[in-house]
Amino acid sequence: MRRLRQGDTVALIAPSGPPDPLLLARGRHVLGGLGLNVVVAARALSRRRYLAGPDFARAADLQEAWCDPAVQAIVCVRGGYGATRLLDLLDWDAMAAAEPKPLVGSSDVTALHQALSIRLGVPSMFGPMAACQALGGPDGPEPHTFAHFRGSLFEGAAARPIPGTAVLVPGQASGPVIGGNLSLLAALCGTPYALRAEGRIVLLEDVTEAPYRIDRMVTQLLQAGCLQGAAGIALGSWVDCGDPLPILAELLTPLEIPVIAGLPLGHGSPQFSVWLGADGAIDTESCSLAGTLRDRETAS
Amino acid sequence: MRRLRQGDTVALIAPSGPPDPLLLARGRHVLGGLGLNVVVAARALSRRRYLAGPDFARAADLQEAWCDPAVQAIVCVRGGYGATRLLDLLDWDAMAAAEPKPLVGSSDVTALHQALSIRLGVPSMFGPMAACQALGGPDGPEPHTFAHFRGSLFEGAAARPIPGTAVLVPGQASGPVIGGNLSLLAALCGTPYALRAEGRIVLLEDVTEAPYRIDRMVTQLLQAGCLQGAAGIALGSWVDCGDPLPILAELLTPLEIPVIAGLPLGHGSPQFSVWLGADGAIDTESCSLAGTLRDRETAS
Repeated sequence: MRRLRQGDTVALIAPSGPPDPLLLARGRHVLGGLGLNVVVAARALSRRRYLAGPDFARAADLQEAWCDPAVQAIVCVRGGYGATRLLDLLDWDAMAAAEPKPLVGSSDVTALHQALSIRLGVPSMFGPMAACQALGGPDGPEPHTFAHFRGSLFEGAAARPIPGTAVLVPGQASGPVIGGNLSLLAALCGTPYALRAEGRIVLLEDVTEAPYRIDRMVTQLLQAGCLQGAAGIALGSWVDCGDPLPILAELLTPLEIPVIAGLPLGHGSPQFSVWLGADGAIDTESCSLAGTLRDRETAS
Repeated sequence: MRRLRQGDTVALIAPSGPPDPLLLARGRHVLGGLGLNVVVAARALSRRRYLAGPDFARAADLQEAWCDPAVQAIVCVRGGYGATRLLDLLDWDAMAAAEPKPLVGSSDVTALHQALSIRLGVPSMFGPMAACQALGGPDGPEPHTFAHFRGSLFEGAAARPIPGTAVLVPGQASGPVIGGNLSLLAALCGTPYALRAEGRIVLLEDVTEAPYRIDRMVTQLLQAGCLQGAAGIALGSWVDCGDPLPILAELLTPLEIPVIAGLPLGHGSPQFSVWLGADGAIDTESCSLAGTLRDRETAS
């Protein structure tokens, strides 16, 4: 896996909900402004109920972009729902045979990050999406979001640790970052794509879920063994979730691993980017999460 | 396990959310009117956030009632959230040593039904709860709900099959009924208490969940293998869930087992009762679910 360079081709796909065409057009323009050659996948503007077209078409767009050597990265256009429906439809053998490339997305795309981690063992980037307000909004991309997004894609985001606002359990932790949207991690419990946190730093965030639901989902992760052996926990944004920190602290403190909160990762603004499956570190003295994507090609 | 008789003692417990005291008082009176001796568990009126007191206290109330030979049945006062938090706190060996007794509840109590099924292999009753509108409302219990509740508790509900309103997949199915609230069944995926539908008729219902969430939860049950080998599916009420039947039909039809819908089981009114873990049958000619609790003691 290598970081992006100017002139690289990026495919925009819609694995979950249907994108707003105007947001998509603006987000495409923003990515083009980074010197990238942006192509929109064939079926990204389809619609079927709350899905961006039928499952087979969304899966085909993902698989074709992944297996096309002319595409250097894949950026999802939005979340919503639908990524879990694709996981059993993808030809993972064919995807394993292709050169790995960055896949970028968050929210529902957590399911794809999990599947890429478990089936292919490759890093991917949890960050803002092309047809969302953070990149495609009418006033242009949110500056902090955009700067961090660009740095993460082109430089691997190693330079600047992501600052949090609260330390729930002090300590140091290092290991690959994993996780993402809590609802999706809960929805993968019991499936072949379930979270396996052993030795890893777990990112958790969510949107519009009441504290009792966050309680239920974290309780599920605990009872399903998904958090067993985790090295640390990094809590992102909890937009329109009330105040879930008391219940998160109650459930996570007994794990006796470092826990930091208030990271600008998830649904808030600014919305930073973090590499999953790449080396990470929690430092509770500076209350931050650091992550490095090693660039095999440029490092050689 | 035997059905109830006049003079039996029933314990009311709050394993999930805190009950409204007025609803609880009225529900208690209604149960007393059935000739039952009703006792309210020691800590049923506690409150801690959205829970009816701390986990250890709610677990203790359940366990003490289950292990007390002077108590012939347990009726939960309401749902909400909190039952999953108790499952690892209960002394299942001690509970296995006690004489099984009916436990009654629905919604969040689905977690207790699952745990009783998996840990003890005993039947339990999915039905209305003491401090809910269906039994404790200001105008008295809803008549159809109450008649079916009484019949199920005292007569085993064998006599009257529960009528549905739609056949999604025709056919005949028989086997023990299992399941209940879809959100809870999804929340148990990956845990030791997960649904195992092999040879069983699966009841599914929910409240205030959008179709895309119902899609996500059923997709999880499918991907986790929870519905593998199911004999049939009985769909209850979907209160404030929009119209989830198209997506339920799309996901469940490929199982090629009988599926009926529109059963008055779950959160609607009337709210019938069904014995889980007892013999059941789906008949799509009459579009109904029949269930019999064999009464070992009275049958001998």
